[in-house]
Amino acid sequence: MSAARMLTGDRPTGRLHLGHYVGSIANRVKLHQRYDSFFIIADLHMLTTRNTREDIERATDNAREMVTDVLAAGVEPDRATFYLQSAIPEVGDLNTLFQNLVTVPRLERVPSIREMARDAGKDEVPYGLLGYPVLQAADILCVRAQVVPVGKDNAAHVEVTREIARRFNHLYGEVFPVPELVPAETPTLVGTDGRAKMSKSRGNAIGLADDAATVRRKVRGMYTDPNRVRADVPGTVEGNPVFAYHDVFNPDRARVAELKERYRAGRVGDVEVKEELAVALNRFLDPIRERRARIEADPGLVDRLIVEGTERTRAEVRRTLVEVRRAMGLTAVYQRVRRRAERTRRAAPTPS
Amino acid sequence: MSAARMLTGDRPTGRLHLGHYVGSIANRVKLHQRYDSFFIIADLHMLTTRNTREDIERATDNAREMVTDVLAAGVEPDRATFYLQSAIPEVGDLNTLFQNLVTVPRLERVPSIREMARDAGKDEVPYGLLGYPVLQAADILCVRAQVVPVGKDNAAHVEVTREIARRFNHLYGEVFPVPELVPAETPTLVGTDGRAKMSKSRGNAIGLADDAATVRRKVRGMYTDPNRVRADVPGTVEGNPVFAYHDVFNPDRARVAELKERYRAGRVGDVEVKEELAVALNRFLDPIRERRARIEADPGLVDRLIVEGTERTRAEVRRTLVEVRRAMGLTAVYQRVRRRAERTRRAAPTPS
Repeated sequence: MSAARMLTGDRPTGRLHLGHYVGSIANRVKLHQRYDSFFIIADLHMLTTRNTREDIERATDNAREMVTDVLAAGVEPDRATFYLQSAIPEVGDLNTLFQNLVTVPRLERVPSIREMARDAGKDEVPYGLLGYPVLQAADILCVRAQVVPVGKDNAAHVEVTREIARRFNHLYGEVFPVPELVPAETPTLVGTDGRAKMSKSRGNAIGLADDAATVRRKVRGMYTDPNRVRADVPGTVEGNPVFAYHDVFNPDRARVAELKERYRAGRVGDVEVKEELAVALNRFLDPIRERRARIEADPGLVDRLIVEGTERTRAEVRRTLVEVRRAMGLTAVYQRVRRRAERTRRAAPTPS
Repeated sequence: MSAARMLTGDRPTGRLHLGHYVGSIANRVKLHQRYDSFFIIADLHMLTTRNTREDIERATDNAREMVTDVLAAGVEPDRATFYLQSAIPEVGDLNTLFQNLVTVPRLERVPSIREMARDAGKDEVPYGLLGYPVLQAADILCVRAQVVPVGKDNAAHVEVTREIARRFNHLYGEVFPVPELVPAETPTLVGTDGRAKMSKSRGNAIGLADDAATVRRKVRGMYTDPNRVRADVPGTVEGNPVFAYHDVFNPDRARVAELKERYRAGRVGDVEVKEELAVALNRFLDPIRERRARIEADPGLVDRLIVEGTERTRAEVRRTLVEVRRAMGLTAVYQRVRRRAERTRRAAPTPS
């Protein structure tokens, strides 16, 4: 009864927020029960845009916080294998072997690469950033994942993985599954400023680890309808982030519908709508907070999970690499040399 | 008394010819005495343009033939470390770490990449081929070579190695020497057809392993001055491959000068000039043949050298990778996680 494998994960950028939850974590919480689930802490991917010693130094704490948040969000530790990408150097070996299975123009057609470079303040795309989807293929295929949950941004990356898997199998025989993409239901969440998608660096994020008072304060400061100077002025619901959040996080659909109607008619104040949103968000976050409290009551739990997961994954990756090199015929190249070397060493005349 | 290190080598494409000798081997024969010399058998580089199972299958025999020819040409086995690139997977790890230290536009400015793709019949440049100079940087720096002999074609590649070494040292501290380029004296040799540079695939090559009769036959068929229908017609020396070879391989300078003068004056036949060239070439090749005979009389010698060299190099590369990961701070990322995992495991209360 070996379950199909899923691979998912993120670069270790620290605490997660509601945008992460909606865009990917919720999906993972649901999916990870069905699969043998690998969660990569992708610190080598971080190096494509942030590679100073300071960036790397922060990776440990960021990894711990990220894993803590994922567990708090509902991923069960005994259903998930967390691992640190940089602690598995064999991934770099596989990445190097995959680089000849995809062309430069193909990678240049992947939409988000130039955007990632721009976001990172790079005028010129680093070679490793253009190859982001190749390293990602190494991540996915080194554990032979059959399922990869994708958001809007990374579906095009994972398409490259599928092409590399097919190309490898075609050239060297069936070694890799061609993984299926599982799209997330709600790809993005707008930030509290109503302008762009939620992001820690834009300061428009509500963290999964924020306490109740912080959530209330952030909700109170949220952008709403700017034309609405008083509660009795009819307001706009569409594109209003307060209602976008109500739609996602308030389970009382009837109440949300009623609030929208009153808002449009100028019969409810922003304060009340926000107050109810803060209550809904805190209700949503309470079980996450409780799980976090339990996790943090066991110091080192997250570290132990990462170590166990990394050891398990490394053993798995090594097995994959043995098979990859055998299928390509690379093992045999050296083996033939070694065999003849040994045979002739043995056959050498002993000094008389 | 640890000598400075030199790295040189080739993709395993089999037997070497006079063009290789002139373009690189002669230089290596001279240089390898002065340095602790690593000779890479670059089969991973072969994969950038030839990566079928059949291509890979041929690598063993090609590697043996290449090393045999290099030894026959005068490289002394106890002054050289031959190693098989693909048998050292840590090189792929280093390659992956180096990919973020150079940009795509920088690699696109390396002149010979598109030419290599065209020669290999590829319409689109494989990603790994664009990154050829990055993998080469990994080769050179993984043994911390201080000296790299270069021909016309690869000087621009090795310039990228120097940039990556500097960039790494700048970001993470002094780990790598910035290797010096040592140019070869005579970069290229024209083929027997007088048209393009000598190359096995063009059928215009004289092999280092050709026997005396083959050399005579090939020289007899050489392209000379096409306007010269008879021996008493004045001939052209410039651009005439027969004289180009006399210039390189005939040590009797006075005799070569005399032949040129008589050729220009229409006082010597092509047959005589070629006959003397064949004699000169066979004299040049005789000691190479004798050394080859001695090497081949010891079956498995070359295989044993490759195995010893690969083991030595792998140990060296592993040491380099430990230092690279330590300098970047990657080792510490996982170490901090492991330490806390161990500490808390020990501290866990024993069941009462």
